[in-house]
Amino acid sequence: MNDAADRRIRAQDQSANTAEFGAQFEAWRQRMEYALAARLPQPDKVPARLHEAMRYSVLGGGKRIRPALLFATARTLGLSEDDVEAAACAIELVHVYSLVHDDLPAMDNDDLRRGRPTCHKAYDEATALLVGDALQPLAFQLLASDPKLPASPAIRLRLIDMLAQAIGTFGMAGGQAIDLAVQGMRLDIGQVEDMHARKTGAVIRASVLMAAECAPPLDANLYAALTRFATAVGLAFQIQDDLLDVTGDALTLGKATGADSERAKPTYPAVVGIPASQQRVRLLHNQAVNALAPFGDRAESLRSLAHWLLSRQY
Amino acid sequence: MNDAADRRIRAQDQSANTAEFGAQFEAWRQRMEYALAARLPQPDKVPARLHEAMRYSVLGGGKRIRPALLFATARTLGLSEDDVEAAACAIELVHVYSLVHDDLPAMDNDDLRRGRPTCHKAYDEATALLVGDALQPLAFQLLASDPKLPASPAIRLRLIDMLAQAIGTFGMAGGQAIDLAVQGMRLDIGQVEDMHARKTGAVIRASVLMAAECAPPLDANLYAALTRFATAVGLAFQIQDDLLDVTGDALTLGKATGADSERAKPTYPAVVGIPASQQRVRLLHNQAVNALAPFGDRAESLRSLAHWLLSRQY
Repeated sequence: MNDAADRRIRAQDQSANTAEFGAQFEAWRQRMEYALAARLPQPDKVPARLHEAMRYSVLGGGKRIRPALLFATARTLGLSEDDVEAAACAIELVHVYSLVHDDLPAMDNDDLRRGRPTCHKAYDEATALLVGDALQPLAFQLLASDPKLPASPAIRLRLIDMLAQAIGTFGMAGGQAIDLAVQGMRLDIGQVEDMHARKTGAVIRASVLMAAECAPPLDANLYAALTRFATAVGLAFQIQDDLLDVTGDALTLGKATGADSERAKPTYPAVVGIPASQQRVRLLHNQAVNALAPFGDRAESLRSLAHWLLSRQY
Repeated sequence: MNDAADRRIRAQDQSANTAEFGAQFEAWRQRMEYALAARLPQPDKVPARLHEAMRYSVLGGGKRIRPALLFATARTLGLSEDDVEAAACAIELVHVYSLVHDDLPAMDNDDLRRGRPTCHKAYDEATALLVGDALQPLAFQLLASDPKLPASPAIRLRLIDMLAQAIGTFGMAGGQAIDLAVQGMRLDIGQVEDMHARKTGAVIRASVLMAAECAPPLDANLYAALTRFATAVGLAFQIQDDLLDVTGDALTLGKATGADSERAKPTYPAVVGIPASQQRVRLLHNQAVNALAPFGDRAESLRSLAHWLLSRQY
């Protein structure tokens, strides 16, 4: 069977599986709501306002895409959701911290997030700063000592190291810094891809690879295949995000659109245009799906998730 | 020998040892300068401005009090400086992150720190935000994987857990939130002590106990004694800080004075007055020194450090 025929058949399978996957995705989302609520500090404990603001920011919204990547990878590798739930919480907590800080006036100055006032609007700037500052150590604490994470000390350390690298200056925080530095500048597409790889790609990739770390050691080829999948999805996801900022509507997205061009951010569509960006998402999508081939049917969840992520409208 | 006589003799010893300890303290400070410089991302790596701002904030200033607590505890327990250097760096990085974020306009809005412009003044607010955000994961990364930390995976995890708790909502970030919440309020002395215990005490305590974690398991009584020492020093240190804000001068301190009362912060001197605060520092100092009795001469460094910390003028 040649590649094109193979892709067509897989596309049909995906379409048939999309409704079923939608239910799975929603079940994971609900699971995360409980999992996160149980791990966040209670609002009746001092400092109550900070704890409330942390819960406001983390709970009651969010697609939980990164946790879904952990769960789908777990399935692919024969693990259960329980095996990676604590790691999924850690990843989601650092994701939310990054949103809360990015929304601050000194950064993107956004008033709306997930259809609600951003943390510094609902509370105040100092509280939003502390929410982000306190979500970070909570994430590391879960990886170090959450009793539901069935990982050896050595594996926990690997997870901590991976998360720390994914959100540090060669990952998310570095991507943010580049994003700030290049506003109004002309970048080539390689530079935009480097920025995206750090800003969003690093944590998406860590979501997949941290789940893999929880499984019995993978054959090097399979690990490389998963890495290719995660890298392609991470980049495609951010290009899709850039596209939605241009073509989406604020109501569906739950946040303001057109913000990137207003800030003169060198996004993917700004550099190569909308059609070429859409084409790039399709190509990366294919690369991602092809990378999963060695896993066969076991990777169905990951395949459906990639399909859902890269055709999403919000 | 009764307690009073014992204390008198110890006070004489301390005074004789102060000059010698000054040299030791300075040697530790220099050691930290190299240790931190080697572990911070290089300024020629992208994102260069963020890396520069991290190095600006961490290097070239700072008394390195928390690292000194680790080194002195290491000596007391028969460890070398090498054994705890990476942990000392982790503690100092989170300390600097907290200073950089506390100095931001949304928090204390300070222009001067360690006699130089604060990070957001030397760079900009967004960069200062990211400096703090990036120093946190670097600290956890050192504890997870620094090759110079000679600790088993289980001990590394304990260190990560301790650091995460010390800087989370039941530690430093929580103390900051309380500090913000109570400005202009009348607190009783118990509430001020709770705030201090979190804001400064938790990391001071963690500095001592993380060093202890690196040593062979301690007898429970000795561990309890070290905990008493660390708790007393942590609180006394913050009261001394409050006192210096009232009685110190900006030139010696390298930062503005009188800032606490300007912000109507309920500090220790504001609640009980200067003489009672000074008396409390002396009492805690004695408690701290008494707690070290079971360690005998081996605790000389810790004793000298406590003496230095609690009689400091800057």
